[in-house]
Amino acid sequence: MDVLILTVGTELLLGDTLDTNSYYLSKKIRNLGFNLYKKVTVGDNTERLLKELRYYKDKYDLIITTGGLGPTKDDLTKETAIKALELEDEVEIHKLSLETVKEHFKGREEYLDLNMKQVMFPKNSIVLKNIKGTAPGALLIGKQNEKIAVLPGPPKEMKTMFENELEPILKKYSDSIIYSETVHIARLGESKVFDMISELFDKYTNPTIAPYFNDDGVFIRITAKASSEIEAKKIIKPVKEELYSILGDLIYAENGQSIEEVVKDLLEKEDITLMTAESITGGMIVSRLIDIPGMSEFIKESLVVYSDEAKVKYLGVSEQTIEKYTVVSEEVCKEMVEGLLKTYNCNLAVATTGYAGPDDEKAGLVYVGIGYKGKNYIKEYNIKGDRNTVRRKATRYAIENIRFAILDSRK
Amino acid sequence: MDVLILTVGTELLLGDTLDTNSYYLSKKIRNLGFNLYKKVTVGDNTERLLKELRYYKDKYDLIITTGGLGPTKDDLTKETAIKALELEDEVEIHKLSLETVKEHFKGREEYLDLNMKQVMFPKNSIVLKNIKGTAPGALLIGKQNEKIAVLPGPPKEMKTMFENELEPILKKYSDSIIYSETVHIARLGESKVFDMISELFDKYTNPTIAPYFNDDGVFIRITAKASSEIEAKKIIKPVKEELYSILGDLIYAENGQSIEEVVKDLLEKEDITLMTAESITGGMIVSRLIDIPGMSEFIKESLVVYSDEAKVKYLGVSEQTIEKYTVVSEEVCKEMVEGLLKTYNCNLAVATTGYAGPDDEKAGLVYVGIGYKGKNYIKEYNIKGDRNTVRRKATRYAIENIRFAILDSRK
Repeated sequence: MDVLILTVGTELLLGDTLDTNSYYLSKKIRNLGFNLYKKVTVGDNTERLLKELRYYKDKYDLIITTGGLGPTKDDLTKETAIKALELEDEVEIHKLSLETVKEHFKGREEYLDLNMKQVMFPKNSIVLKNIKGTAPGALLIGKQNEKIAVLPGPPKEMKTMFENELEPILKKYSDSIIYSETVHIARLGESKVFDMISELFDKYTNPTIAPYFNDDGVFIRITAKASSEIEAKKIIKPVKEELYSILGDLIYAENGQSIEEVVKDLLEKEDITLMTAESITGGMIVSRLIDIPGMSEFIKESLVVYSDEAKVKYLGVSEQTIEKYTVVSEEVCKEMVEGLLKTYNCNLAVATTGYAGPDDEKAGLVYVGIGYKGKNYIKEYNIKGDRNTVRRKATRYAIENIRFAILDSRK
Repeated sequence: MDVLILTVGTELLLGDTLDTNSYYLSKKIRNLGFNLYKKVTVGDNTERLLKELRYYKDKYDLIITTGGLGPTKDDLTKETAIKALELEDEVEIHKLSLETVKEHFKGREEYLDLNMKQVMFPKNSIVLKNIKGTAPGALLIGKQNEKIAVLPGPPKEMKTMFENELEPILKKYSDSIIYSETVHIARLGESKVFDMISELFDKYTNPTIAPYFNDDGVFIRITAKASSEIEAKKIIKPVKEELYSILGDLIYAENGQSIEEVVKDLLEKEDITLMTAESITGGMIVSRLIDIPGMSEFIKESLVVYSDEAKVKYLGVSEQTIEKYTVVSEEVCKEMVEGLLKTYNCNLAVATTGYAGPDDEKAGLVYVGIGYKGKNYIKEYNIKGDRNTVRRKATRYAIENIRFAILDSRK
């Protein structure tokens, strides 16, 4: 099935809104095994939109539009699609949608009139429920079986409607599916990962293997084309096993699980109380960990020790050590870790010290220390990038290293 | 000038890459006062790309493409644009680009051959330097004066090239500019701000006034069309003054300055040492503040007091208060603030306590407390949204309230 994505909205042309809708839909269309050769964006202009829809409706098996379903006079995508498909005579009130809208505006009947246009559909169309907003969508079907799906613009509404309503219908048209799994790599950069697994690229064509990276680290996507998800998983399994045999413990998670969740599971299994003493990362490590629900079992308190004095006062770091080695040093980081374990009620300690920049000569030099079960793991990093890149990467490394320390203690 | 943006890249159609390039260019085109009615995305497929370029080259005054300028055989945008403009016979080596590439690959001559295609341009074209990568771009000019600008795909390279090379050329074609300023609003939601300034919408047509919001709060954009930036600023000034007269201290910044920077300036002016005791926000407030360079002058240390025990131990919150009012209460928040000011070396205290969810019945109930110059400012919030929305919003409110407390102390 050949699909065209047509996003509608003047705000997209003015640069007010980043188009994440077509990004989301692109992935979905790929996973359904459909072809996407083109995406188009136009503004809230009926004439231009009509021209596009008329031009493309016979050239593609399905056009998916987003945006322009709201109650105001700017919102004309559905009406324009109906016109393009010449279905104006078949429009009627969709009773179920009317009831939903009535329910929604109970006691505020003045809004009902404004919203009446939202419940009018050609009788042959499949109305798509909107559980996150008031405007329903639809799969409109023309007399020559042309298909135009109209979805709302707000990403939350659009995604929920696509997943709950449109995707199940589209799955019936799909004879093969594209299914991906990802493995997440800690500690290594993209080129290093690439080197380690380069021989696999030629070895496999289905599934394909593609590394990519973002702020959370390096990922390897394994993508299979198959008749079903079960079949795809079968094809992916041996390749994933081969990745594990090459990368081992460097793989910290699969399929979207975050490093914080992995760490939380480990804290739970080992019954660990964790505490941080953060200088350069200044609360970012503990904050990212607390993002995970249920972390209160394992983190009771933590310290931000940004100044030298705070490192001395809270952690008993010796002033001599700071003087001799400077505050950004392996030695100070080690004393920070030891101070936490000695003075506070925790059995895993995390400490950071470093130069974030921008004006430090040594900006990017960071020490990340973990103390656990009698061992200290102090690592030096030289991180390239601006102040926030340095702080974010140091935070990620610290969280990754919590995992490595716990795994090491099991050996 | 009517412009078409044409982004090229199979990764954009597969949903691997979010198209931020066309978002960036949309804004730039708007600011130049040009018209953008349409954006198109196609894959790295010469045939389809050629079809698009041939179709659109006479319909628009300028097509701007991004992507497909690299050295590999997939990268065919420039070659295809040359073909669409029928300039194949006029291609020659661009000497300056050749020297740059030679310099770049010094000692690795094997790469030079691969990159030769990057230095070939029609003699009539304007070559655009790429200081962030190896592939130069170009403004290609056809025999009937059709214009196609080819820019690289990587956002850093594209943006730098646009700003340094293409924008100065395009400015010559612009007879009016679009210039915007923004004011940033604290404390209020979008609908409230909208209500307060609704009368201004009809009052002004140039400049126009548009409120919008994101995770950082509510913003009002004032946009003027004028012959020059000076002229535009003149038009905007009285409107901005009117906004200040309505919103007063609720406006915390203009034109992209962050609330953290505003707070830093205030800490500096008043010579304040700030300390946080964070429960629900768990380090996020102090971490966001430390994101701003130079904050080490004003923040020496901070506490994450996630458990009840930590609140008692570090801040002297009374167990009776916790028992009587629960740990998420105005009373506990107040004792947290007071404990910080009494026990630690700070003169502005920030404390948070709340339920982040997802499983708490009262998820979203948050108290944010500031203590400064003998006054406590304890505020209750009921924040809607998931765990991270609650934590992020509580963090923003806390940082906004630091500013309000300091402003209040000056009255």
